[in-house]
Amino acid sequence: RINSDRLWDSIMEMAKIGPGIAGGNNRQTVTDEDGEGRHLFKRWCDAAGLEMGVDEMGTMFARREGTDPSLPPVYVGSHLDTQPTGGKYDGVLGVLGGLEVVRSLNDLGIKTRHPIVVTNWTNEEGTRFAPAMMASGVFAGVLDQADVYEHVDKQGKKFGEELERIGWKGTEKVGDRKIHAFFELHIEQGPILDDEGIDIGVVTHGQGLKWLQVTLTGKEAHTGSTPMPKRRNAGLGMARVIELVHEIAMDYQPDAVGAVGHMEVFPNSRNIIAGHTVFTIDIRSPEKEVLDAMDGRVREGIDTICEALDIQYKIEQVGAFDPVTFDAGCVKAIRDAAERLGYSHRNIVSGAGHDACWINRVAPTAMVMCPCVDGLSHNEAEDISKEWAAAGADVLFHAVVETAVI
Amino acid sequence: RINSDRLWDSIMEMAKIGPGIAGGNNRQTVTDEDGEGRHLFKRWCDAAGLEMGVDEMGTMFARREGTDPSLPPVYVGSHLDTQPTGGKYDGVLGVLGGLEVVRSLNDLGIKTRHPIVVTNWTNEEGTRFAPAMMASGVFAGVLDQADVYEHVDKQGKKFGEELERIGWKGTEKVGDRKIHAFFELHIEQGPILDDEGIDIGVVTHGQGLKWLQVTLTGKEAHTGSTPMPKRRNAGLGMARVIELVHEIAMDYQPDAVGAVGHMEVFPNSRNIIAGHTVFTIDIRSPEKEVLDAMDGRVREGIDTICEALDIQYKIEQVGAFDPVTFDAGCVKAIRDAAERLGYSHRNIVSGAGHDACWINRVAPTAMVMCPCVDGLSHNEAEDISKEWAAAGADVLFHAVVETAVI
Ligand SMILES: NC(=O)NCCC(=O)O
Ligand SMILES: NC(=O)NCCC(=O)O
Repeated sequence: RINSDRLWDSIMEMAKIGPGIAGGNNRQTVTDEDGEGRHLFKRWCDAAGLEMGVDEMGTMFARREGTDPSLPPVYVGSHLDTQPTGGKYDGVLGVLGGLEVVRSLNDLGIKTRHPIVVTNWTNEEGTRFAPAMMASGVFAGVLDQADVYEHVDKQGKKFGEELERIGWKGTEKVGDRKIHAFFELHIEQGPILDDEGIDIGVVTHGQGLKWLQVTLTGKEAHTGSTPMPKRRNAGLGMARVIELVHEIAMDYQPDAVGAVGHMEVFPNSRNIIAGHTVFTIDIRSPEKEVLDAMDGRVREGIDTICEALDIQYKIEQVGAFDPVTFDAGCVKAIRDAAERLGYSHRNIVSGAGHDACWINRVAPTAMVMCPCVDGLSHNEAEDISKEWAAAGADVLFHAVVETAVI
Repeated sequence: RINSDRLWDSIMEMAKIGPGIAGGNNRQTVTDEDGEGRHLFKRWCDAAGLEMGVDEMGTMFARREGTDPSLPPVYVGSHLDTQPTGGKYDGVLGVLGGLEVVRSLNDLGIKTRHPIVVTNWTNEEGTRFAPAMMASGVFAGVLDQADVYEHVDKQGKKFGEELERIGWKGTEKVGDRKIHAFFELHIEQGPILDDEGIDIGVVTHGQGLKWLQVTLTGKEAHTGSTPMPKRRNAGLGMARVIELVHEIAMDYQPDAVGAVGHMEVFPNSRNIIAGHTVFTIDIRSPEKEVLDAMDGRVREGIDTICEALDIQYKIEQVGAFDPVTFDAGCVKAIRDAAERLGYSHRNIVSGAGHDACWINRVAPTAMVMCPCVDGLSHNEAEDISKEWAAAGADVLFHAVVETAVI
């Protein structure tokens, strides 16, 4: 079993970097705080005798040598970046859980045949720069590195320049590594395990996602003196699209979800009818057909709404991944580990996207989940117990060691 | 007749201060640009031999002495502050039209019995700091000076401190002046005069307004892994309220308008269900009963919407004025002037709020309007012709001189 105190202490130590305003974290990707978190992680990796590699996307790879260095490594990790109002565990548990795996191997003096690499993928959250899982997407060859370098945040800063500014743009070519298998431990971020009182989620699938960034263009005009029929209200258009997305998701739930969390309004003045709005639709389903059907209905609905309001629209897909089926062998390694360790477990579909979803395209991959209180995540109040973290890390440890072969 | 070239040149000169991004202006209240605009106006007033007074709300009063200095002055003016994406004429025409009245009197060597005071009221727009018509509201005793000093902009800066910072907090007590009459020239900001090809709007009434700032509190949660029935979506709540306001306004139009132009979303991340939204509802009607009925329906509707979504709400009235009936004598002075000068004219109800609406409560007041292209205002593309401006200023000149008595 892993050392649960050490794991917990490390999580709490990392949480001191980029504190939020309500007990959580604001350590968004490629900010100064992200840089500081990376340095702390590197110090821990150095102390554990790992060798650090950093690729051109800033992803960190901390290697513990195997007895047969020519074998492809088993990778284990997640991400250290957070939402602007994020929790202490989302991503962090997976990275520090991976670190705890090698720390425990060190304690026990166990050598594995395959090397083990603990990984911190850059910009998993996608909140500052779309899309989510950016670095793992480039690694898997799904996203274009030159393109994502140009992606801008709300201040117009470029991802590539910010990565360089914080000093974590490495020299290693992205995606060149051979991966024997990849395991990611993550909090569920949904309510199933907590509701059912189950220790371990064996993640068999991940649901697919589309992010559609919509720009509506109406006409700025006075809210008082412009007659109702003369208005071309981009704010009203946005409101109708938000309701549309909700209705469509309700039609397909529980096999789908949908919402708009990001909205910008121009010029955003009390007495000006919005001339311009920009917002991102987030729709998801574990069924590709459902996701495609939702996408179609959303686009059709936007067209109808905009025609009625005499406003123009532009739709850009700024993120997307298909539903994922994880590798049967890796999934079995996780289920077997949970069974062997005596933890209650069940199969589960990930509602969120994860780096594992992209890496699954280039290597055998699976995920292990632990509960979080009330399923709450992307909220500073996100919470887990030390025992839940320990159970997840124990299962991760056994699955990794099993796969890396003693 | 006034000197239309000089009036036009002054408007164009003022428009150089705080230029917008699309040909209009961004000279929001108590910004550095507002300060600069005030200095230019003061230089012009000095050159015209006027004596400047500034009150504790920053309102500027430029006095041309009368032959009987003991008589209460005739006031004439409007505001120099603009929307963030405002036009060159909204407010500015009225201040510089007033200046043109005294410049023309100087040219012609005409002395009036009553002094004439050209006025630049602070924060008419209400976009940076609610409410609109702030300084004239304090002057009329409707708003509390100590209270509005504390009002904050989106950056949390206080109105009172910003007024002091730009150096335009005067020492004169607000509202102490005796006003014989007040005249305000303004562009219509609506389409009636332009549609009908009429030179002059004789403003008999102004519609009433309510600004209701709504704060919705739901729960931040993951857009992917939170099941639809578990969501408490403050963004969806805002969307429904926007639609509600539109529906209510449509029910009462053409006797009402309604919209939401100001919206803030927290934490505003693509994959976080909004936990918190703040936005301002703007509803207006020339009929007090209609305005009150709309207000009631809006509040009832918000309650229903929030109950269905399991979110909390707070409603704060951040601006309000009742419908206005302008002074019959002043209105007649304007209509007579238009008639005498041979301009086509019609009675009109102001759709927007104006400083004249507040001053009407403490002194005989009326407004004259000129057309603007397509009724467009609160848009950088706001446009008028030099001839329209001249006609409005001519009527203003005659009404003022008639009232100030030669
Ligand atoms: N795990 C997680 O919150 N990932 C962010 C990407 C997503 O929105 O699903
Ligand atoms: N005239 C004008 O645009 N005033 C601003 C106050 C309002 O919103 O009516």
